Amino acid sequence: MVPHLTTALTGPLLELEKHFLDNATAIERWMRSQWQEHMPPFYGSTDLRNSGFKLAPVDLNLFPGGFNNLNDAFLPLCVQAAQSAVERICVGARSILLVPENHTRNQFYLQNVAKLVSILRLTGLEVRLGSLLPEITEPTVVELPNGASLTLEPLVRHGNRLGVKGFDPCAVLLNNDLSAGIPALMNELHDQWVIPPVHAGWHARRKSNHAAAYDRVTRDFCSAIGIDPWRINPAFDTCSGLDFHARTGEQELADKVATMLDGIRAKYKEYGVSDEPFVVVKADAGTYGMGVMTVKDAAELIGLNRKQRNKMSVVKEGLEVHDVIIQEGVHTFETLNGAVAEPVVYMMDHYVVGGFYRVHTQRGRDENLNAPGMHFEPLAFEAPCSLPDSNQEPDAAPNRFYAYGVVARLALLAASVEIEETAPAVAAEA
Amino acid sequence: MVPHLTTALTGPLLELEKHFLDNATAIERWMRSQWQEHMPPFYGSTDLRNSGFKLAPVDLNLFPGGFNNLNDAFLPLCVQAAQSAVERICVGARSILLVPENHTRNQFYLQNVAKLVSILRLTGLEVRLGSLLPEITEPTVVELPNGASLTLEPLVRHGNRLGVKGFDPCAVLLNNDLSAGIPALMNELHDQWVIPPVHAGWHARRKSNHAAAYDRVTRDFCSAIGIDPWRINPAFDTCSGLDFHARTGEQELADKVATMLDGIRAKYKEYGVSDEPFVVVKADAGTYGMGVMTVKDAAELIGLNRKQRNKMSVVKEGLEVHDVIIQEGVHTFETLNGAVAEPVVYMMDHYVVGGFYRVHTQRGRDENLNAPGMHFEPLAFEAPCSLPDSNQEPDAAPNRFYAYGVVARLALLAASVEIEETAPAVAAEA
Repeated sequence: MVPHLTTALTGPLLELEKHFLDNATAIERWMRSQWQEHMPPFYGSTDLRNSGFKLAPVDLNLFPGGFNNLNDAFLPLCVQAAQSAVERICVGARSILLVPENHTRNQFYLQNVAKLVSILRLTGLEVRLGSLLPEITEPTVVELPNGASLTLEPLVRHGNRLGVKGFDPCAVLLNNDLSAGIPALMNELHDQWVIPPVHAGWHARRKSNHAAAYDRVTRDFCSAIGIDPWRINPAFDTCSGLDFHARTGEQELADKVATMLDGIRAKYKEYGVSDEPFVVVKADAGTYGMGVMTVKDAAELIGLNRKQRNKMSVVKEGLEVHDVIIQEGVHTFETLNGAVAEPVVYMMDHYVVGGFYRVHTQRGRDENLNAPGMHFEPLAFEAPCSLPDSNQEPDAAPNRFYAYGVVARLALLAASVEIEETAPAVAAEA
Repeated sequence: MVPHLTTALTGPLLELEKHFLDNATAIERWMRSQWQEHMPPFYGSTDLRNSGFKLAPVDLNLFPGGFNNLNDAFLPLCVQAAQSAVERICVGARSILLVPENHTRNQFYLQNVAKLVSILRLTGLEVRLGSLLPEITEPTVVELPNGASLTLEPLVRHGNRLGVKGFDPCAVLLNNDLSAGIPALMNELHDQWVIPPVHAGWHARRKSNHAAAYDRVTRDFCSAIGIDPWRINPAFDTCSGLDFHARTGEQELADKVATMLDGIRAKYKEYGVSDEPFVVVKADAGTYGMGVMTVKDAAELIGLNRKQRNKMSVVKEGLEVHDVIIQEGVHTFETLNGAVAEPVVYMMDHYVVGGFYRVHTQRGRDENLNAPGMHFEPLAFEAPCSLPDSNQEPDAAPNRFYAYGVVARLALLAASVEIEETAPAVAAEA
């Protein structure tokens, strides 16, 4: 089942999908050349917005948490892509330690961990789970609804290596986004592969670095393929030195938002789009949909009430927000039985391995669907993203999924560039 | 649908499948390390025999011709694996010339070519078909039963490069096994990637080199994994200087066959197998099931009648047979509705991408199912070969397919070793 694109403006997107379809060979060749220059992340996922006139990612998660939502039919693709990733990053590895998020009761997340464990085992790795939770002081079995179980073990550090008792792994795979910073246990693990590198954790990562990298990647891509980058690239800006409680920087933020809204309005006019422009203001270091605000008029930002200021000022792990990214909002026009449906695309190495729709019945099309505690129904993609079919219409399922896969890989490529550019300087050799 | 293994001797094979299943992690790790040492062929297929007590390949085809018989659900696996292969062998390639066999009316083969073309296009390569047929003097459209078509074009040589008119490809992919030798047009293509290298064509390839490489590969593998190599490795020997017409070498061949039959008998006794041993005598340079003979008693080789001698003395392209390989026969005990069913496993790069059963109703289980003009019904594997499931019985479909995939990859690895070892010496650098 594929969500319906409920918009009168199918013309422009059809045009984009058609352009991707007609240029699939050139696109794949371009991608191949880029992955020669940049090291693909081990894995990643990206949330897309599809407005009918614009198809764009809104974030790129380097610690993806929904592998359990993928179509089981694509599990072999995951295994094959994971084999590539292991060969590329840690070819000699015999064993790997997976460090999950600190959720022990979130059954959905735990099923994601279980799926990752099974994928990794099928690549020929011994896998164990090391937990950062202080209450995990001994191996703890967690039962899953499907009858399987996971064993969480306390982390053990030996010199420059991390493991669990009786297990000294070749590599450490993070599925924990390190929002709270790099735990002391994980600092300076010079004798192991740590994937992704710790500087890609959310304690250090900035949405604006990613957006800047995505901006450059899409400009290159669009010039090679011949489309207006605006079709796939939301405008962005940043605003620093904010203090929402003290109302410091409020006016500067409102001015920047006003400028962006004007810019979007001009583009809408150029393309004959009659929808109302909006921007999304997000904590630059935030995640999990916290510290996010949708703005249609810059005046909304002057004199926010206490509740609104509280909401914007703190993100996960209680971190205060001083820097935000202002991002052009992309309407969500895909619906399934009247419910808003957002595609989420999953990748391992540089391959798209599947995806699903977040189907949500209670939210508007310009609101953030990944808000805390938000309930959604996952609907696995019915077809892979790698088989564009020029014998079918540009918006037929294989071609829609292909377009998703193209944009998702551009976001992944931007993440590669971002990780390279934000890497701490390597200490000079002695 | 999975063929039934009709044998009282399910014990030993279950044991082998169970061993593969229990050691899947170690097996995948072993494979990963081997593919670091050896360059995987671009693609390959292998015919397996499954006797219930022995699971072994009977050949390894470096110019596979049945991609059309694979389960469509696995096409994404083919595309992903082909992307890996292209990245490994000719990463910068924009275009590729596919050189098919000289069949213009074999609809099954042409559908294989069409499938290959679509896989290659999806990896980002422009693809055209260059034919070695002298009658193809201009672009010739061949219609396929599914409504698609292929355009065969005459080959054009420019300096050290091969192409077709207006198309100077980065790489040449052979799906033609070069049984008749290297055509003048294809000699010394120093400025292009030629895949597989021409010395892997059947004009030069010897089954005995492959068998010797497979012997070493499986000895290493079995010692790492802890099984008796006999379970997956048929005994082999060679006999040279034969002239079937002149009856030269007849006695030597009969003696070698007798020795091998004795050896098999001893092994059958050791494992409690009550079946009748047999060997297969094949032209060392033969292909397409020509020049093949099944022998249960060495005496059969003395005084062959004219018809038998004719059959053995000439293979494809009219080449005379002077050297044969004698190979331990492996019974085919898999049947589907009473018909003998043989698995054929397909690989691209070092990944198993699918397979099918050759289902044949009119042949015995110890006969060659790939004889000239032989009709068979392909039955695509219903599940991938990369997802062993220890929650299921060792002979459940995913585990049976996994075992096929392991043995097939060993044969592919042997082909890599063989191609390396038979490569012509590189001219010394100036």
